[in-house]
Amino acid sequence: MTLGDPLPTTFLPRHVPPGRRTAVLLLTCPDTRGIVAAVAEFLARHGANIVEVDQHTDHHDGVFFQRVEFELAGFDLAPERVLEEFREVSERFSMECELRLPEQVARIGVLASRQPHCLLDLLARWRTGELHADIAFVASNHTDHAEACAFFGVPFHHLPNDLGKDVQEERLHALVDETGVELLVLARYMQVLSADFVARYPHGIINIHHSLLPAFVGAKPYHQAYERGVKVIGATAHYATEELDQGPIIAQDVARVTHRDSVEDLVARGRDLEALVLARAVRLHLAAKVLVYGGRTVVFG
Amino acid sequence: MTLGDPLPTTFLPRHVPPGRRTAVLLLTCPDTRGIVAAVAEFLARHGANIVEVDQHTDHHDGVFFQRVEFELAGFDLAPERVLEEFREVSERFSMECELRLPEQVARIGVLASRQPHCLLDLLARWRTGELHADIAFVASNHTDHAEACAFFGVPFHHLPNDLGKDVQEERLHALVDETGVELLVLARYMQVLSADFVARYPHGIINIHHSLLPAFVGAKPYHQAYERGVKVIGATAHYATEELDQGPIIAQDVARVTHRDSVEDLVARGRDLEALVLARAVRLHLAAKVLVYGGRTVVFG
Amino acid sequence: MTLGDPLPTTFLPRHVPPGRRTAVLLLTCPDTRGIVAAVAEFLARHGANIVEVDQHTDHHDGVFFQRVEFELAGFDLAPERVLEEFREVSERFSMECELRLPEQVARIGVLASRQPHCLLDLLARWRTGELHADIAFVASNHTDHAEACAFFGVPFHHLPNDLGKDVQEERLHALVDETGVELLVLARYMQVLSADFVARYPHGIINIHHSLLPAFVGAKPYHQAYERGVKVIGATAHYATEELDQGPIIAQDVARVTHRDSVEDLVARGRDLEALVLARAVRLHLAAKVLVYGGRTVVFG
Amino acid sequence: MTLGDPLPTTFLPRHVPPGRRTAVLLLTCPDTRGIVAAVAEFLARHGANIVEVDQHTDHHDGVFFQRVEFELAGFDLAPERVLEEFREVSERFSMECELRLPEQVARIGVLASRQPHCLLDLLARWRTGELHADIAFVASNHTDHAEACAFFGVPFHHLPNDLGKDVQEERLHALVDETGVELLVLARYMQVLSADFVARYPHGIINIHHSLLPAFVGAKPYHQAYERGVKVIGATAHYATEELDQGPIIAQDVARVTHRDSVEDLVARGRDLEALVLARAVRLHLAAKVLVYGGRTVVFG
Repeated sequence: MTLGDPLPTTFLPRHVPPGRRTAVLLLTCPDTRGIVAAVAEFLARHGANIVEVDQHTDHHDGVFFQRVEFELAGFDLAPERVLEEFREVSERFSMECELRLPEQVARIGVLASRQPHCLLDLLARWRTGELHADIAFVASNHTDHAEACAFFGVPFHHLPNDLGKDVQEERLHALVDETGVELLVLARYMQVLSADFVARYPHGIINIHHSLLPAFVGAKPYHQAYERGVKVIGATAHYATEELDQGPIIAQDVARVTHRDSVEDLVARGRDLEALVLARAVRLHLAAKVLVYGGRTVVFG
Repeated sequence: MTLGDPLPTTFLPRHVPPGRRTAVLLLTCPDTRGIVAAVAEFLARHGANIVEVDQHTDHHDGVFFQRVEFELAGFDLAPERVLEEFREVSERFSMECELRLPEQVARIGVLASRQPHCLLDLLARWRTGELHADIAFVASNHTDHAEACAFFGVPFHHLPNDLGKDVQEERLHALVDETGVELLVLARYMQVLSADFVARYPHGIINIHHSLLPAFVGAKPYHQAYERGVKVIGATAHYATEELDQGPIIAQDVARVTHRDSVEDLVARGRDLEALVLARAVRLHLAAKVLVYGGRTVVFG
Repeated sequence: MTLGDPLPTTFLPRHVPPGRRTAVLLLTCPDTRGIVAAVAEFLARHGANIVEVDQHTDHHDGVFFQRVEFELAGFDLAPERVLEEFREVSERFSMECELRLPEQVARIGVLASRQPHCLLDLLARWRTGELHADIAFVASNHTDHAEACAFFGVPFHHLPNDLGKDVQEERLHALVDETGVELLVLARYMQVLSADFVARYPHGIINIHHSLLPAFVGAKPYHQAYERGVKVIGATAHYATEELDQGPIIAQDVARVTHRDSVEDLVARGRDLEALVLARAVRLHLAAKVLVYGGRTVVFG
Repeated sequence: MTLGDPLPTTFLPRHVPPGRRTAVLLLTCPDTRGIVAAVAEFLARHGANIVEVDQHTDHHDGVFFQRVEFELAGFDLAPERVLEEFREVSERFSMECELRLPEQVARIGVLASRQPHCLLDLLARWRTGELHADIAFVASNHTDHAEACAFFGVPFHHLPNDLGKDVQEERLHALVDETGVELLVLARYMQVLSADFVARYPHGIINIHHSLLPAFVGAKPYHQAYERGVKVIGATAHYATEELDQGPIIAQDVARVTHRDSVEDLVARGRDLEALVLARAVRLHLAAKVLVYGGRTVVFG
């Protein structure tokens, strides 16, 4: 089965989200008077119906963040001309800004190793229509998930470790380019990507780490957690950056544990956390609700 | 000790919040185009520096809600003239609107019965500067808390049940009028207030109910929870309305319980929940972050 | 694909649980002196190595509960003779007791309707070796999940509503009898089972209800939750009893929600809760960790 | 006001816990067959009515832990003779064991600095009868809390930093000796105790650290958490050991935070966590429910 084949009926989404097409304007600038009015006035003048506005001011650093989602119906500018026309505003306030079209289904690529839980969770959410994205490919350094990918109807690529990291990463770059994916999701991918690889996709790679960062960076965090005797474990989804486990945190969640939980129990409890936290982070990213600033994120919930 | 006496040094706040004086404009109106721009333009024209904006659109009912907090420094309208000048905007969009001055320290009155935990928690938060309000009086149908109120420096009024509900409530009305309190907090006050009493303070009375409403309304919710064998208990802070335990919910929180927890254990676990949830709701109300609509609340967190 | 076919490699469990074969003795009796000693002495005399003991005394009702898990290696009684030999103890203390062999893989049957999330979650947990049970069949009043069941290698039975409830339930009884399943799991099965059907499997049917019972019994609990404006939603796994949504609660979990969450959002948030809570309850049941008493459960975590 | 004075009526406990006097036997030994039976038989032989048994086997290290709580009424050994008589069992299994009498009200000493929240919380819990211990003294390097201690009726000792750490700690040792306290509670005491001081009270000092250890050890953990951009903060109660923030963890709890929370907000959110987690740990310790093993704790909840 490949993309385009009829889906197993299990996965026919029964709740069709409203056809409303929207655009999202994301902007960051030094905080000053008049920003909100200028942005709102620009959008009103062009007939935009604003669906949702979120904003945040970091009073400590004097930085303003805004996310404005508006309907494209009735808006008198073509998406590709928005930022150009908006320049009158964005230059006045020294804004960095970006236009995203979240209802345009994004394409994502998933990297996995042998553990299936995060991958299966993403595949199921995709197929039940919950993900608002297309999974364009799955790549793995093992072959275990080839059949599952076939069942779910997504192309699977085997990139064995024998290839060496350089070739593996070359092939990944090629896959990204061919498929036009905007986001790579590391679904418990146990290979460390090179700094060069990561640098090519700033805020374009989401990783799930199986601890509540910054606790227990690196290998075997559940073993570390067991040894330290913690009463709470967690999982962290973050953008991958060149420094391992140091990227901006998008989402975290926790579970209580006790002395009764062996390392294996922590691993099992953690699986559910990892799948949930990763899915939450991917959804937030796809909805253009995450802004990165100074190594931290602004997440408009 | 009375209000105005020097405080025990335990309670001298060490973190003084910034002197920034702000106003909050709360508005509700039918959803349509141009609201955000019109409000922002009005404020910008009068020199307001917007500190925080929250808004919400109930797409189902087509209603728009907004909370705008702006600095009074540099704003060219006196607070008492804001709504009048704003009429050009508010009438155009059929807004209900309200101006609050949250940094102006509000006055609240607290009603309690014999249980001390919620009352002590509020008194301690007040005295450590965490509450951003003055507790103008405590009233109770018992005398137990007279000494604690003296220690914390707040006038205590005994309104025994012998007086009968009519006289009790008359005296409460008089206390409210004399002290100018804006909010009554029922800190485990075990008397049912009459519908007439409640009707006089719409969204002006916050109650804490010791269950996760709508489960276990009425008396002895922990006994009910124990009998039903639930694995989660909770507490609910809500505005009191004429119908018991049916008012708009402001805040809820939960705790896990097991078969090991007796009714007494649930009561003890619940005390911590009740105090925390009540304090959270009072703080949200005082910060003008709660809007009521159709029996529900919009809570800008 | 049918049971017995080679599994897709995604599902080859990589963590093989220790081969240790254990038995569980579950007992309930009036609380008195000497129970613990008598049980421990009996087991020690027969060479049992106790792996885990949990016990609970309901001091209010004067009832004692115990779960003793012991290794079969070295134990000098065959499983089928244990209760008979134990009679000297069980009669002395008027015990109700039961022997379970949890490491013996149980067989379960799953009933589903159109929603896939709980079913897929159980199938994936089964196939990744997390469930410690075999799914012997899936039955549904719809055909949607036939292909997914084929992929996961589990027999699928279509029992359309056209058959009428009597025939549907007859066929279910037949399936249970043929396959020897010990537990029926209602994975968002939207048909109400008859009281007669339920009565035949006391504490043998686990249902997931999509609210935090006893709040929002019956239909459309997320709509009810939205209307009431709650700030916390939940899911409840319970044994089905003749009275709808009134059975003993095994597990519950919660998620915070806000005014921003539409009914559809609550439904989506709830899906994750439902799958997790149902899986947790099924695992607890399969591990013989749930005792029912007076409409409540003792759950040894 | 001093200990022994009549209490303010706010603090008269209304729920009097049952007069049942119990003892707790705590034991640790290499895991082997027959332990449970031998202990239970010993207690049964001496007429003990067992109220609660908890046990745990660390299968990885082969260690067995047990907590047995039994009523003293009907038990034919005086508390001081129990361990001696029990030697027949304890030597056979190479047990380390301890007898505690948790219903005997323990005496604790509290150390605080300027922040009042943990101290006030403990004082209020003590005075409302929730703590099952007497607070024998409060000592502080500041004078701020003298009046609050007077109100709550507990002796206050000022040990200014001018004294130098050696003298401060000498005086603390003297206080501990004079008052016979069994437990020192560091209620946000901001002085680092010397390794010598700590070594004198193994598992006799409970500290609250304002992070989810092992994340953010050392100073200003909320600043560190803010800088890292975490989405979850926490508090950790642990036994103080010679290495700062490395002692065995007794209890932890967490709260979700967002980009909206400033450092001051984290501090404020954290205060509630710290008070709750510290109180929970102190209660667990006083109920003889905490065993320490290999730098970790077994906490019988």
